[in-house]
Amino acid sequence: MYDVEKIRADFPILSREVNGKPLVYLDNGASAQKPQVVIDAITNAYSHEYSNVHRGLHTLSNIATEKYEAVRGTIARFLGVADEEQIILNSGTTEGINMVAYGWAMPRMEAGDEIVLSVMEHHANIVPWHFLRERQGVQLKWVDTEADGSLDTQKVIDAIGPKTKLVAVTHLSNVLGTKVDVKAICDAAREKGVPVLVDGSQAAVHMPVNLDEIGCDFYAITGHKLYGPSGSGAIFVKKERLAEMRPFMGGGDMIREVSKDEVTYADPPMKFEAGTPGIVQTIGLGVALDYMMGLGMENIAAHEDRIRDYAVERLAGLNWLQVQGRAPDKGAIFSFTLDGAAHAHDISTILDKKGVAVRAGHHCAGPLMDHLGLTATCRASFGLYNTESEVDTLIEALELAHELFS
Amino acid sequence: MYDVEKIRADFPILSREVNGKPLVYLDNGASAQKPQVVIDAITNAYSHEYSNVHRGLHTLSNIATEKYEAVRGTIARFLGVADEEQIILNSGTTEGINMVAYGWAMPRMEAGDEIVLSVMEHHANIVPWHFLRERQGVQLKWVDTEADGSLDTQKVIDAIGPKTKLVAVTHLSNVLGTKVDVKAICDAAREKGVPVLVDGSQAAVHMPVNLDEIGCDFYAITGHKLYGPSGSGAIFVKKERLAEMRPFMGGGDMIREVSKDEVTYADPPMKFEAGTPGIVQTIGLGVALDYMMGLGMENIAAHEDRIRDYAVERLAGLNWLQVQGRAPDKGAIFSFTLDGAAHAHDISTILDKKGVAVRAGHHCAGPLMDHLGLTATCRASFGLYNTESEVDTLIEALELAHELFS
Repeated sequence: MYDVEKIRADFPILSREVNGKPLVYLDNGASAQKPQVVIDAITNAYSHEYSNVHRGLHTLSNIATEKYEAVRGTIARFLGVADEEQIILNSGTTEGINMVAYGWAMPRMEAGDEIVLSVMEHHANIVPWHFLRERQGVQLKWVDTEADGSLDTQKVIDAIGPKTKLVAVTHLSNVLGTKVDVKAICDAAREKGVPVLVDGSQAAVHMPVNLDEIGCDFYAITGHKLYGPSGSGAIFVKKERLAEMRPFMGGGDMIREVSKDEVTYADPPMKFEAGTPGIVQTIGLGVALDYMMGLGMENIAAHEDRIRDYAVERLAGLNWLQVQGRAPDKGAIFSFTLDGAAHAHDISTILDKKGVAVRAGHHCAGPLMDHLGLTATCRASFGLYNTESEVDTLIEALELAHELFS
Repeated sequence: MYDVEKIRADFPILSREVNGKPLVYLDNGASAQKPQVVIDAITNAYSHEYSNVHRGLHTLSNIATEKYEAVRGTIARFLGVADEEQIILNSGTTEGINMVAYGWAMPRMEAGDEIVLSVMEHHANIVPWHFLRERQGVQLKWVDTEADGSLDTQKVIDAIGPKTKLVAVTHLSNVLGTKVDVKAICDAAREKGVPVLVDGSQAAVHMPVNLDEIGCDFYAITGHKLYGPSGSGAIFVKKERLAEMRPFMGGGDMIREVSKDEVTYADPPMKFEAGTPGIVQTIGLGVALDYMMGLGMENIAAHEDRIRDYAVERLAGLNWLQVQGRAPDKGAIFSFTLDGAAHAHDISTILDKKGVAVRAGHHCAGPLMDHLGLTATCRASFGLYNTESEVDTLIEALELAHELFS
């Protein structure tokens, strides 16, 4: 039994008010709030168990190292990965994808080589590839979404040509909520010998993910969206790709030996984890994932599906509001515009007066905005602690905004 | 009046025991402990004021953005930098130096170009340059330390030749405690038109730093050594170098516009800050720097000088112990070896039994270890909360170790 009121009580910020109204936090696509267990883990680490990791031999260092390193296994379990050596700990998806761009793609792509990506990618899964275009002539090959915001996987597969060296695709759009059948893409790409990078920043938050089933080569997640601390994250890299990848950042911990003339590198995953890591954030991320797995990813997904269905129905009743993205089985993310002159930013400001936190802007998805013919949308994105009554509050606030601007 | 007992009470971890003994934390060179105000700032941020930054327009996002962005000014003040636009926020020194290597050095160095660096650099200030050697034939030109562990700045200046494109040097050695007259190096290098990168990871923790006086081009600091959260940090980049530097990581926030065919970048510093940053860590770092400036960097330095003088005297009484590094006016960092078969790791294990946390190993300084003819040392590194009585405890524990191994 998914007791959302009990769950809400785990998140201290949810009991605060904003502008004299109870906070209705619908900005989960940008970042999620943190349960008390995560905050407590951070406090405990700094108050009682803090030290640098790996290099120490004293008690505190051993405690910190043990707790930090255990998170690798937690993430592997969370993502359905058998071998935790394929999990690289980092500061989030942006670092993860840049590591792949610099460490794997840059040394093996030349002018004319292609990267296939969907038009609904987040800038984190676009700009690193634009670097390769600008700097070494790699071609970006875009696959547009359908009218309902879904992504036709066959079109992605068909876009893979003899010059394609990588497919980079999101698992769940941060703007449209569209879920992508990444397994179908990976199956086909594998037959053609083309690796697939999946941006799991949104998907891993909202549904069970099993990478052994999906069979992708890279899968990036970001801790702050997963109810964990800011500056935490990880990327799964398949063993074969790990072996091909050169180090991204250089520094402590990722080396075996350094002399004046030479450097030899540690084995993966350490080879890709330079310097003092985000020790306490990573420990907090482990606690956040345990919290989610404790609730059950199937249960979280089912809860959010209920919220989505209710929101779809309620929003459909507003004939002056256009929801972008109506793919079947989409996530509980709603980007919309309103009839009339109202700019998305003005709408979000009015909603904020009613305590409703949504985001307005391009949502770091420039090509998708161009494709939709928009410059900005408002986005309400739901998480594991949101309720149907919060959908009602959103609708009321939207009605007020519509009244004000019409 | 520097009241060290009052200061110690600000650090909750310092009242804990290790192996039944009061913790004597002398591993500050690896990472420093956190005062309650920093821990409280983190708790408060996650409990009451958390949101993603920059892209929002709702109340929580505005609060988080304001607090996050204010830290840029705090860091500028801390480092004596007039224009805070020259401060790039990041996850620490490793990321900072890699950004310079990838964003500034990589596109402007070719085979045969030289980087001058001291033999006592940390791997974070070595491995990124080894990448350039391995990948594009850049030459590393090393300047050794003198017999007492000091660095002859004239030798660094003399090493700058017509092919030299960068000098990369530490401000304070993490192994020897040696302080480097980086201003003298910067003055001479500027005349020769060669930029200087200073690794300030250690120095900024222990003494006042004024970059307007020093005149370097890059200055990297790391938050977790500065009594701030793990995964926080910054790098100062002089305006002229900012203009020359291409983006390092690609993603959200660092762009102006992204389309299928093109990308344009935000102005610095945002251009170099991709993706959701370490929001809460950075807020915590600001609080840590305010805490240090509240105590006064001059006062912290004077306190640590007293500890150093006392430790120098006490350690000199142990004729079976060899301290590495006796440069005049060194910082309170002592690397040492013991007569007899005892390995550094065994010594640190014994000290740990007495509650004394020190580090054993190569301290991420391979070339220096080679230069000293050692594979490992024990290192006791002091911070603003250490006391003379802790020096006594260290000496007693060392005497016990000596007894056990002799």
